[in-house]
Amino acid sequence: MKQALGCTLLALAALVGCASSPQPAPPAAMIDTPACAAPIGSGDLGVVVERAKGSLQVINTTSRQILGSIDGLGDLSHASVVYGRDGATAYVFGRDGALSKVNLLTHKTDARVQQSGNSIGGAISQDGSLVAAQNYQPGGIKVFDAKTLALVADIPAEYAPGKLSRVVGLADLPGKRFIYSLFDAGEIWIADLSSPGSPKITKFKDVGRQPYDALLTPNGRHYIAGLFGEDGLGVIDLWAAEPKVTRILGGYGRGQAPLPVFKMPHLRGWAVAGRLAYLPAIGRHEVLVVDTESWTEVGRIKVAGQPVFVIARPDGRQVWVNFAVPDYNRVQVIDTQSRQIVKTLEPGKAVLHMEFTPRGEAVWISSRDDNRVSVIATDSFETQAVLSIDAPSGIFFSSRANRMGF
Amino acid sequence: MKQALGCTLLALAALVGCASSPQPAPPAAMIDTPACAAPIGSGDLGVVVERAKGSLQVINTTSRQILGSIDGLGDLSHASVVYGRDGATAYVFGRDGALSKVNLLTHKTDARVQQSGNSIGGAISQDGSLVAAQNYQPGGIKVFDAKTLALVADIPAEYAPGKLSRVVGLADLPGKRFIYSLFDAGEIWIADLSSPGSPKITKFKDVGRQPYDALLTPNGRHYIAGLFGEDGLGVIDLWAAEPKVTRILGGYGRGQAPLPVFKMPHLRGWAVAGRLAYLPAIGRHEVLVVDTESWTEVGRIKVAGQPVFVIARPDGRQVWVNFAVPDYNRVQVIDTQSRQIVKTLEPGKAVLHMEFTPRGEAVWISSRDDNRVSVIATDSFETQAVLSIDAPSGIFFSSRANRMGF
Repeated sequence: MKQALGCTLLALAALVGCASSPQPAPPAAMIDTPACAAPIGSGDLGVVVERAKGSLQVINTTSRQILGSIDGLGDLSHASVVYGRDGATAYVFGRDGALSKVNLLTHKTDARVQQSGNSIGGAISQDGSLVAAQNYQPGGIKVFDAKTLALVADIPAEYAPGKLSRVVGLADLPGKRFIYSLFDAGEIWIADLSSPGSPKITKFKDVGRQPYDALLTPNGRHYIAGLFGEDGLGVIDLWAAEPKVTRILGGYGRGQAPLPVFKMPHLRGWAVAGRLAYLPAIGRHEVLVVDTESWTEVGRIKVAGQPVFVIARPDGRQVWVNFAVPDYNRVQVIDTQSRQIVKTLEPGKAVLHMEFTPRGEAVWISSRDDNRVSVIATDSFETQAVLSIDAPSGIFFSSRANRMGF
Repeated sequence: MKQALGCTLLALAALVGCASSPQPAPPAAMIDTPACAAPIGSGDLGVVVERAKGSLQVINTTSRQILGSIDGLGDLSHASVVYGRDGATAYVFGRDGALSKVNLLTHKTDARVQQSGNSIGGAISQDGSLVAAQNYQPGGIKVFDAKTLALVADIPAEYAPGKLSRVVGLADLPGKRFIYSLFDAGEIWIADLSSPGSPKITKFKDVGRQPYDALLTPNGRHYIAGLFGEDGLGVIDLWAAEPKVTRILGGYGRGQAPLPVFKMPHLRGWAVAGRLAYLPAIGRHEVLVVDTESWTEVGRIKVAGQPVFVIARPDGRQVWVNFAVPDYNRVQVIDTQSRQIVKTLEPGKAVLHMEFTPRGEAVWISSRDDNRVSVIATDSFETQAVLSIDAPSGIFFSSRANRMGF
């Protein structure tokens, strides 16, 4: 209603002779501009990271078009994005330690803070009031007010006197809590920010060597940390009366010569479909199928390379996989009922990321070295659109605002 | 950017002396109105149905405030709402057979069609292009272009020559398909609108007597129809190579005198938590717990009345239940791990509906006869806000745009 009133006022002003202004008349292009552009919803918006240019391209998943860009965001190699509750506010975690708050409707940066020297992503609290960054240098997390980006809490990952660990696998838990893994310490910590001034830390020790990434199951119940330093994973049942770390899938690669690892796989993404989790095996051309009730391996699926992202379509009927160099031109689709590869796609050189539309009818895939993002129908595998975007990496849709564990 | 330009123009107009206008000056309240209100995201918006007034109140789940109202929508008793992909466009299905397309940002009705004599809700296709209404009178579904509300297909539920069934349990399936139940025929139909001009209908017969409502599991795999005319439910595995109806939970109330039914329970809502489904028993003070892998009953939970809505919190850790008259002042919370009632709330007279925020930190509850909507934290059960709304019934948040089966 306010917007409508604003337009009325402007129309009125135009009617009553503002052309008699001593100011120069606005150029034609401005006159053509509607007084107040019709407001648009943010439900079908998203951003694509241009890693080389330090920009975001704002896109619409209904029209499959670029709406504009948000520039000047610094080093966006390995950048990640989380969304505020409104679906229009996005928080961008740059590799250079900058945290930027941007708006997908105005295409502006509303706040920006240089919060560390080297960061690897972040999370937003369940109520949207706190944003947390996970840092390599200095190792730890920092928590910010989501409105202003004012620092609320600085929590170094000091696991021994003077020793700070790099932090990975950060995810939100219910009630202003964050969970994360300490790569150098082999620990998992939960920071409770209910009283932001005095965060309460719960520490899980001896979770396994070098947790390198983690995922929270879609229901927020299980936190699973991948281990780089040993064969296996660590899992915590966060709903247990007394949560503790259990080692699972120990020795799943034992007896085979380890392969060189070309790129660390990512665990997050919705690699949980029904009661089964699909996980990338480190260094192997395999996806592991794990029963989330017993936490035992129930199958392996041979794939075209070392998996990087293993992501379930929102309905869990398909799992899409991309790969490390040299197989990173390909994407494979696993049918979860038959556990067979049903499609191999080559959407362009250097596939870095895939993002499903909220109801799963399409997937957006970035091909960095071909400077394009492809929109592909998940039923027919037809390419519905190709967008020219400079060295695209991560793709993040506003529907992430509604999900836990991102 | 366009919006910003509009604001600039108005500011300019204000600067150059529009006060010299022969028109009366706008009242102070209007002057205070910003030229172009800053655009807002639609991710945390929703509507509450005022059933008596035929209006929607537009609300924000972050500020927990009413933003405005959309009036003149006709008979909204038993009204339901689905959302377009943008999260700002909502489609309102009135009991009087009217279908209205409204915008939560402008608070305006953009299109409206009187599509039947008596309607009981609707659905929107996966790609957001088609809206379908399920009708009692005349029995059948009608499918509309989501942009214009132009009629795309009229599909009478003619199950025998000249006999039309009332339609219930309508839900979207992937690929421009809709599934629904024929109450009078005991059938389930799937309409495929891939070629909108010539819809293809698949019919399942002998699904059980009087299917009265249905739910699609969150992954879209199983469609479960409740039966009013017999003890049991019908289920279809839509992922099977050849889907067919299986009768489940036959005779679950056998041996006990049937109770009078004060209000038909609703099956839809996210009553599936993990591998278990929680279903209202008709006429009994019980919630049934059903294993969705074996489709057998694994438990019953005694509750305070005849359940109407049985809805899982998004993470599935809690299930919230409201009741038919005379127990409709109460709401009970089931902990899904212990299967115990952990809380009984009395948020006001005549609780008609409950809606969770997308990440589950709060639930909004309408109390019709106390003319209020309560916002309750799901961890502490504290009331965070109370909104005065006239005879509120259904509550629908824009995050529904992202879900299948609504």
